[in-house]
Amino acid sequence: MATKPGIPKGTRDFSPIEMAKRNYIFDTIREVFYLYGFQQIETPAMENLSTLMGKYGEEGDKLLFKILNSGDYFSPLTNDELLSRNATKLANKFCEKGLRYDLTVPFARYVVMHRDELSFPFKRFQIQPVWRADRPQKGRYREFYQCDADVVGSDSLLNEVELVQMIDTVFSKFGIRVAIKINNRKILTGIAEIIGEADKIVDITVAIDKLDKIGLENVNAELKAKGISQEAIEKLQPIIQLNGSNEEKINTLKQVLATSVTGMKGIEESAFILNTLSGLDIKSEIELDLTLARGLNYYTGAIFEVKALDVQIGSISGGGRYDNLTGVFGMDGMSGVGISFGADRIYDVLNQLELYPKETVNGTQLLFVNFGQQETNYILPILKKVRLSGVRAELYPDSAKMKKQMSYANAKAIPFVAIAGENEINEGKITLKNMETGKQEVIYPDELADKIR
Amino acid sequence: MATKPGIPKGTRDFSPIEMAKRNYIFDTIREVFYLYGFQQIETPAMENLSTLMGKYGEEGDKLLFKILNSGDYFSPLTNDELLSRNATKLANKFCEKGLRYDLTVPFARYVVMHRDELSFPFKRFQIQPVWRADRPQKGRYREFYQCDADVVGSDSLLNEVELVQMIDTVFSKFGIRVAIKINNRKILTGIAEIIGEADKIVDITVAIDKLDKIGLENVNAELKAKGISQEAIEKLQPIIQLNGSNEEKINTLKQVLATSVTGMKGIEESAFILNTLSGLDIKSEIELDLTLARGLNYYTGAIFEVKALDVQIGSISGGGRYDNLTGVFGMDGMSGVGISFGADRIYDVLNQLELYPKETVNGTQLLFVNFGQQETNYILPILKKVRLSGVRAELYPDSAKMKKQMSYANAKAIPFVAIAGENEINEGKITLKNMETGKQEVIYPDELADKIR
Repeated sequence: MATKPGIPKGTRDFSPIEMAKRNYIFDTIREVFYLYGFQQIETPAMENLSTLMGKYGEEGDKLLFKILNSGDYFSPLTNDELLSRNATKLANKFCEKGLRYDLTVPFARYVVMHRDELSFPFKRFQIQPVWRADRPQKGRYREFYQCDADVVGSDSLLNEVELVQMIDTVFSKFGIRVAIKINNRKILTGIAEIIGEADKIVDITVAIDKLDKIGLENVNAELKAKGISQEAIEKLQPIIQLNGSNEEKINTLKQVLATSVTGMKGIEESAFILNTLSGLDIKSEIELDLTLARGLNYYTGAIFEVKALDVQIGSISGGGRYDNLTGVFGMDGMSGVGISFGADRIYDVLNQLELYPKETVNGTQLLFVNFGQQETNYILPILKKVRLSGVRAELYPDSAKMKKQMSYANAKAIPFVAIAGENEINEGKITLKNMETGKQEVIYPDELADKIR
Repeated sequence: MATKPGIPKGTRDFSPIEMAKRNYIFDTIREVFYLYGFQQIETPAMENLSTLMGKYGEEGDKLLFKILNSGDYFSPLTNDELLSRNATKLANKFCEKGLRYDLTVPFARYVVMHRDELSFPFKRFQIQPVWRADRPQKGRYREFYQCDADVVGSDSLLNEVELVQMIDTVFSKFGIRVAIKINNRKILTGIAEIIGEADKIVDITVAIDKLDKIGLENVNAELKAKGISQEAIEKLQPIIQLNGSNEEKINTLKQVLATSVTGMKGIEESAFILNTLSGLDIKSEIELDLTLARGLNYYTGAIFEVKALDVQIGSISGGGRYDNLTGVFGMDGMSGVGISFGADRIYDVLNQLELYPKETVNGTQLLFVNFGQQETNYILPILKKVRLSGVRAELYPDSAKMKKQMSYANAKAIPFVAIAGENEINEGKITLKNMETGKQEVIYPDELADKIR
């Protein structure tokens, strides 16, 4: 056992400073969630595989971490099955449970299981890790936190408005300037209807998205290469070149999609959200962006995505409306809309922009130097008192060399050190040293808490 | 998929109210940990099985949840191995990773892996779930949180003193009256030495523990039945009948264990801890209790256990000193001492004694009734403003029947409801209803936040 132990690839330890920063992120988001009337739930790390399988596509099923059954996990298997060595198929016989892959499916399961205890609309948030057997790479982990807020049981677009406000409030608190991009699945469906190419939505949005980079001519060429007819490409021109204010975009879309009932519904929804938000003093840029096509296989209405303006990084938050969250568990007609904050990316952005407040790290504020038993007896009641005043304080546990105790204070970035030797004890005082300025003063112990805050 | 979905046995969903209570517990404990200079770390849910196996005894190995390898997990296995169906042995070929079983082994692994970044003594705390494939029963779960604080890299008994202070502070904050029981492994070793029955420590403590219930005669009979010699039983009499104050107990022990070097060391350590604590205004009962024998296979010095005085329940916190935490990972000489708070039991105690502060549930404080688009336009800026003042508020998203909106407020236990109809809007006011008293008043929107707090 002499080899240095490691941890599974794609997983991380979090050091005290990393934890302090992560707690700052989660606490900030949680506080906003509460302010908007959302309530926290937690679900188990393990779900039955029957709950998870088939919800994330075939690829997703493969990325589930499966937990080997306890006891004699061989018993459900025949010898022939064993020798077939069909790993994918037999995993479900070896395993009944898996680690959660996201927070949405466990939430849907939760709503169905607890439907009789819940009052709808149910506004829940959930901040928990999820696990995916993805190939680890920079910024992609096998264990990472999701941070979701959803409203289920209400069709009202006011929910969409509130979620955007919540995003705006969270990033204002962080001091991160963002653009909140909004799209609507129904607009995309309308576009596909109008041009008669229902199955090409993704190709179209991908091509349009490149307009700035490759120019109109190349976008049109790409659309043609994807098998979209010349007629359709012509109809698409006002949409590819859509620009101006959100209001101008809406007006253009109203003309282009006039004959699509679904498309017009999507425009109406987007217009309502944008109009309502415009009266609410939103700090972030809000942009109607038709190239936004995330989660197209489950979002049915509004789609959101948040981009940091001052850092080059993927989206740091996103979400949308899904019409039938719980249908897969036999409970129909439960519309939901939600957003998810990407904690790992927000962490990186805050680091890059150095936006963490100084007080994020709840580190020790005051270290008492330990000179031995007698001094310790003098210090312990003082220590107790400063803690009662809310000062995070500690006594070095051993009467080690002064140098060692001081380097401990430095390593932990402790800003104040208190020293009580014979003189101080005789006078009933204590020496307080400011580690940043090096300044020392001899004060009464009762003054410590005030000096430090 | 029409059957109602479930969750794996031994696991739990936590509802908003349960979460609020649990957060209150964790936040209170965390705050005290910070006050004492402890810093938070987190480790991954999954550890390599090589890290976990062999650390919890043979029984513990069986209780580890193992994670099936991704991809072709059959490839390390020969046909003969498969057909041997040796579940225990082959689990290590199917699986490289397992879920963490406690926080201590991952912490030891963390210390060894990060030794070069840490400054010792390292005071860390960790609040995370652990998983055990135990048979679920009342109060025993397969997923539960541990809440640990440890100091490693210091032999000083001041650490023990501080941990007891921390326990005392935590339970004072909760309002739970507790007895903190203290023992020392070295005293138990000394007793075994004196009576020449080194391997009978557990039998002895178990028997002594029954004194109150079955009386001295039966205790002695039980000791005899366990094979302890008459001579040893006679020597044990002062220990079995040990009583009085902690000081009296210490004095008796000093006489009985006078010839045992180890025993006298244990007495000296306990005396130091008890004496130092006696000057620190501890609120809890502190009791030297020789029957305390938890964790005998790894604790090497002080042993702690906390009992609630007003509720019949097992220990709600415990810990002790272990001399070689990281030796198993090839790093020797790292002494540690720690405590663990039992969150699930503390939860039950707080529930039974109804000690949760009223403000524990961060629920919505104010619900705005939704009468439709026009009223909503009036309300949204007001809503934004009360939230800015820190009031947790929401607007019912649909213009549903008044009765439905009111029962939503009741179900969520929202204490205030705000109503704006035509009259209020014309006057630029709002009606605020106190849901508890039924009292209504018409006020200016700017007064809302003050009225609610």
